[in-house]
Amino acid sequence: MATLVTNIGELRTLAAGDEPRRDAALVIDGGRIAWIGSARDAPAADEAYDAEGGAVLPGWVDSHTHLVFAGDRAAEFEERMAGRPYAAGGIHRTVAATRAASDDELRANLRRLRAEAAAQGTTFLETKTGYALDVEGERRSAEIAAEVADVVTFLGAHVVPEGADPAAYLTSATGPMLAAVRPHVAFVDVFCEAGAFDPDQARAVLEAGRAAGLRLKVHGNQLGQSGGVALAVELGATSVDHANHLSAVDVDALAASDTVVTLLPCADLSTRQPFPPARALLDAGATVALATNANPGSSFTTSMAFCIATAVLQLHLTVDEALRAATRGGARALGRDPDADGIGALVVGGPADLQLLAAPSASHLAYRPGVPLTRAVWKGGVRIHG
Amino acid sequence: MATLVTNIGELRTLAAGDEPRRDAALVIDGGRIAWIGSARDAPAADEAYDAEGGAVLPGWVDSHTHLVFAGDRAAEFEERMAGRPYAAGGIHRTVAATRAASDDELRANLRRLRAEAAAQGTTFLETKTGYALDVEGERRSAEIAAEVADVVTFLGAHVVPEGADPAAYLTSATGPMLAAVRPHVAFVDVFCEAGAFDPDQARAVLEAGRAAGLRLKVHGNQLGQSGGVALAVELGATSVDHANHLSAVDVDALAASDTVVTLLPCADLSTRQPFPPARALLDAGATVALATNANPGSSFTTSMAFCIATAVLQLHLTVDEALRAATRGGARALGRDPDADGIGALVVGGPADLQLLAAPSASHLAYRPGVPLTRAVWKGGVRIHG
Repeated sequence: MATLVTNIGELRTLAAGDEPRRDAALVIDGGRIAWIGSARDAPAADEAYDAEGGAVLPGWVDSHTHLVFAGDRAAEFEERMAGRPYAAGGIHRTVAATRAASDDELRANLRRLRAEAAAQGTTFLETKTGYALDVEGERRSAEIAAEVADVVTFLGAHVVPEGADPAAYLTSATGPMLAAVRPHVAFVDVFCEAGAFDPDQARAVLEAGRAAGLRLKVHGNQLGQSGGVALAVELGATSVDHANHLSAVDVDALAASDTVVTLLPCADLSTRQPFPPARALLDAGATVALATNANPGSSFTTSMAFCIATAVLQLHLTVDEALRAATRGGARALGRDPDADGIGALVVGGPADLQLLAAPSASHLAYRPGVPLTRAVWKGGVRIHG
Repeated sequence: MATLVTNIGELRTLAAGDEPRRDAALVIDGGRIAWIGSARDAPAADEAYDAEGGAVLPGWVDSHTHLVFAGDRAAEFEERMAGRPYAAGGIHRTVAATRAASDDELRANLRRLRAEAAAQGTTFLETKTGYALDVEGERRSAEIAAEVADVVTFLGAHVVPEGADPAAYLTSATGPMLAAVRPHVAFVDVFCEAGAFDPDQARAVLEAGRAAGLRLKVHGNQLGQSGGVALAVELGATSVDHANHLSAVDVDALAASDTVVTLLPCADLSTRQPFPPARALLDAGATVALATNANPGSSFTTSMAFCIATAVLQLHLTVDEALRAATRGGARALGRDPDADGIGALVVGGPADLQLLAAPSASHLAYRPGVPLTRAVWKGGVRIHG
């Protein structure tokens, strides 16, 4: 069943070398992009879908979320907005609620938030464990996550749980806990920050994960110069996320590395951290991703459009840079090659993971901040929204 | 036909002295709020509407928009994001497109944007003329605006049109143009800023409007200390809007006056102006409104939720202050008394202009920025969305 998408106001494939195209069309067939070209050259298809002049682009790749949790931290959010500073300790409240929740509660909450993200254009989503912090809880979190998310990351090293001995906890997180989650996860991650894990502890977590066959991610330099960025580069992590507090040496090291820097501006707004030096990173040549960091404490949004608007308006990315960061940048942060496998870019033969905006160009995502512009979303050729 | 709204997760009437209430219910009847109280005391009704645990609050009062226009300025927006500073002159592009548009084009664009705002919770909306800048064009703008908006403001004094003599233009804007729009408008407004009108010119515009029976608004101190705020206070304007650049004297004058200060943070983001000193204004006792400033140049959003999230996250309003500013503050900026006439507050006997959120508390508007949370909207008791 081939579907020809016609009347596209602007097509941005975001593949290498892509420029926005007018008068383009594409064909979806068998869950894949079967053809991309000028509308006047379009092949015959079984049906047509009229984009009504809207912009078409890849679905968002949200490469950093924490969606296996229970409970709500709206009250803590309100306190923080009234002046109480953000600290890693708030995580313990979510840990208590998550441990107390049934599998079905965790699954339903995750599915609800995954659907909410899909309705806003996200077609490829990573999520993490890290709100159970015991062997069985992390295992079930990973298993439930793998039912719903496209990529799962093990974040046993989120914080040391209340009442636990740090050394004993690390022994578990790098041993039996890691073994328990291993069938369900592709990445290991660590919160390398004051109040969580120092660089030596983080190194132990990452090396154990690597020995188990996982790729590496680091939460680094969010609240201070934690050493997480330098560690991520040294160990060849696939991404280092947050990166608010960077030295010039950090920026140069990232630019010279293959490690993607994942910017999480919604978390910065919600925790009132300074924004990361995004312009310096891009100008130095670093590969940048944008993600929501969706979680109930520091960034409870699933809106990649909000991240893009914030990145353009306040981090001074161009619209094109922000779109790339939210699609192919996210794919690279998950170890994917957008041009080869079509995650984070529209390429012939790749998955038909795309979105249609109720706007004539993708620049409207920043030009019209806050306005819900997602008209339709396809994942693997199936319309999952609109 | 009485409708009982049940299963409300949080009711915020935003009437004087209101606190968020759980276990509340309300009755809509004949387009009015007929009853508000505890769910256990609810009277019999013809039908029930299940809020499913969502928060209920008044519809937004968007007291500052410019929606009678044609054309698009996405390209200018992209240039600005790449570093070109904002200046009042961009308005001329919209003037050319608006003059060239048919009545039906202007009407359709306005209706589309009004519907977009309604779908995001706005039940009471002001809009302005100011993109025609000739007698017949301003007249038709005012007439079309009055078909769609709840309040219309005459902004002939937006800028001096290209090629016109300033003195001759002011003579028109305070004479025949004012007379032509008069049947359709309630307010006169002036852009008191470098590149637009100086305080002496602005005074002439406002005094002519007052003599014609209009109430006063001023665009003041957006791009510098233009004198617009002082003029607005001196003349007893109903509101002064923008107020980015204020002296301590301005803050004190506003706090001591009945003039509402309307904050437009989306315009500040899109033009990269410093935010107004919102905390200082509130702490001094000024009455604050929040509005979108929806227009195709400096703030092309209809999302009051985005304004609220920005006001909380970045202007450091509390959630309660932001909600008040976006409802009763907006009503006051339009010369209404929320507690007496029920614009901007839910009061028994007032219009059933309300919204239901897909969230258990209104704090989620800032806690979950960018996520579309508007589940249903009623205006005059009629469900216009959801």
